[in-house]
Amino acid sequence: MKKTFDALDRALPHIQDLHAYVPGEQPQGEGWVKLNTNENPYAPSPKVADAIAAQLADLRKYPEPVSAKLRAAIGQRFGLEQANVIIGNGSDNILDLITRCFASAPGAGHTVPSYSLYPVVAGMSGQGLLDVYFDRSMQLDVDAMAATQAKVFFLTNPNAPTGVAFPLSQIEAALQAIDGLLVVDEAYVDFGGESAVTLLKDYENLVVVRTFSKSYGLAGMRVGFAMAAAPIIGILDRVRDAYNLDRIAQAAALAAFEDVDYFEVQRQKVMATREATRAQLDAYGWFTYPSATNFLFTEPKNAAGESSAEVAADLFEHLKSQRVLVRYFPSHPLTCAFIRVSIGTDAEMKAFLTAVESWPNHA
Amino acid sequence: MKKTFDALDRALPHIQDLHAYVPGEQPQGEGWVKLNTNENPYAPSPKVADAIAAQLADLRKYPEPVSAKLRAAIGQRFGLEQANVIIGNGSDNILDLITRCFASAPGAGHTVPSYSLYPVVAGMSGQGLLDVYFDRSMQLDVDAMAATQAKVFFLTNPNAPTGVAFPLSQIEAALQAIDGLLVVDEAYVDFGGESAVTLLKDYENLVVVRTFSKSYGLAGMRVGFAMAAAPIIGILDRVRDAYNLDRIAQAAALAAFEDVDYFEVQRQKVMATREATRAQLDAYGWFTYPSATNFLFTEPKNAAGESSAEVAADLFEHLKSQRVLVRYFPSHPLTCAFIRVSIGTDAEMKAFLTAVESWPNHA
Repeated sequence: MKKTFDALDRALPHIQDLHAYVPGEQPQGEGWVKLNTNENPYAPSPKVADAIAAQLADLRKYPEPVSAKLRAAIGQRFGLEQANVIIGNGSDNILDLITRCFASAPGAGHTVPSYSLYPVVAGMSGQGLLDVYFDRSMQLDVDAMAATQAKVFFLTNPNAPTGVAFPLSQIEAALQAIDGLLVVDEAYVDFGGESAVTLLKDYENLVVVRTFSKSYGLAGMRVGFAMAAAPIIGILDRVRDAYNLDRIAQAAALAAFEDVDYFEVQRQKVMATREATRAQLDAYGWFTYPSATNFLFTEPKNAAGESSAEVAADLFEHLKSQRVLVRYFPSHPLTCAFIRVSIGTDAEMKAFLTAVESWPNHA
Repeated sequence: MKKTFDALDRALPHIQDLHAYVPGEQPQGEGWVKLNTNENPYAPSPKVADAIAAQLADLRKYPEPVSAKLRAAIGQRFGLEQANVIIGNGSDNILDLITRCFASAPGAGHTVPSYSLYPVVAGMSGQGLLDVYFDRSMQLDVDAMAATQAKVFFLTNPNAPTGVAFPLSQIEAALQAIDGLLVVDEAYVDFGGESAVTLLKDYENLVVVRTFSKSYGLAGMRVGFAMAAAPIIGILDRVRDAYNLDRIAQAAALAAFEDVDYFEVQRQKVMATREATRAQLDAYGWFTYPSATNFLFTEPKNAAGESSAEVAADLFEHLKSQRVLVRYFPSHPLTCAFIRVSIGTDAEMKAFLTAVESWPNHA
């Protein structure tokens, strides 16, 4: 006898309402200049391959469950203890753990625009989402953040998708003003932001989140980490999958983290390419936010000197026709007239600029 | 000004009450015969190393987010579609997803004893846990399972830690009897169990969960999967981390899955070693459950022919003193007089039996 099951009806109510995160497009086929998901244009440290090779003989055995070596190395670098660090299967994993553990009613707060995963993790835990809107000045509204009474507030610093960095004084003001946890998501901080790590010694309501996906060139490996007071880390560890990082991810991240010289060279190259690209956009007369990240958020102008959602969408489609993929966020008034361009190699950025200049509506 | 934050007090109430899963001991130092966490004694297919090497050039780029190739290959093997398969960062990840999506009040059900992660995932989602107790006969009590009214019922088949397999007719009876989802956790099925996959065509309330950690020799890589009706998979995908599997894990699992010949040889070796070991335990006069897994659950006897928690604990400690690590579960009346021994190589099992025979209380 057959038996039916209405999966949507049987799902918990907040799951029924949930919309999954939509990752950036992964183009099929060859020949794309891919500047849409803020990947590092450079491979990770060559020491990563050696570290991976050293794990191959042990794949049959469970990994060390807490990623202790990586926690210790990160703690040491930032003047913290191993007990102040947790490793996630990507920083997305950590954002979810924080929400599951601490985002009771009225829920999680975030700025708009920022990383579009925050609404998803709040929804996954059945919690409300409290919005604090930026205006075009991209000034941080600390009073509005506090007024949300969010139990967890996600702040991307430097911000995505604008690239704007907030000074440490504003982060500290937010830590003073809010009652809940402030989660400073520093995915892009290595490209020019000011880290809140130094505030951890004074603020127990701070969690600093980082990733190996951008500045370490390991987006393909899914490793993120968070730093906070030991009791917060202890709570997050209760909900972490016991073996959340495999052997190879642990070894790869540790090798990349310890190759400080390589890291520094690649980071400087990305920042230099960013500023050179920015100078070109300035020369076009386009408004571009100052960027402390590995991307530029720029407001294109057509030949008539106009900026609008139509102009940005038209450029986005033209670039795509030239196999140059950037990111376009049509749904928000602060973003719809802009495109976000990840920083690639110098050659990739030249290809991007050439494609811009072949746009029929270009000045 | 400093700011304090009482992490435990601020955590959600069910998180305050939560006890994290405790993984099996990972002994430090050399020379251990490690038979405590049911790892495969044999390395994965040599094709895994090639597949990993092929990913090294692309680590800077995000992985394909849904593990589509692996879903398709698994679907094809079992006569299903890609839409019937989801890949997890270990099967633990999938057990958590199922609980988060479907375990509304009165909560999740499980048999006792079984996999000790089920209480943890129920607790992580703030849901109740409904127990169905086995007696020594290890017969499945389908009526008791239905009486729990669990929205999600976890059934390990073959069972852990006893190793006992339930026939498909009993799985089907459970699917008929219960109202919620039946999650058949087939972590060990490749070592002699009867899979419920064939029931998926008739039962939409069935989820079959598998892992690459045991029969594929990839415990170090954290890859599991589930098969179910497409609407169930669609719901689970809403809560899955967008990039839950890294590039290397996807490639390694696919290579291991496709090397069918290698898989078959290793699987047969483990089963042959298990039966040879079992024959020795039978010769000692010990009661051992029939095993359809890569471990044996055996009730040791001392020289006086007695079995008890004290006898089992004493043997466990003796084995440990000989650097042979097995698993002992002291907290349940059905398990406390037994030890669980993973099946290693023939040489490892000989070392285990030698250590048993050096036990001062051995007959």
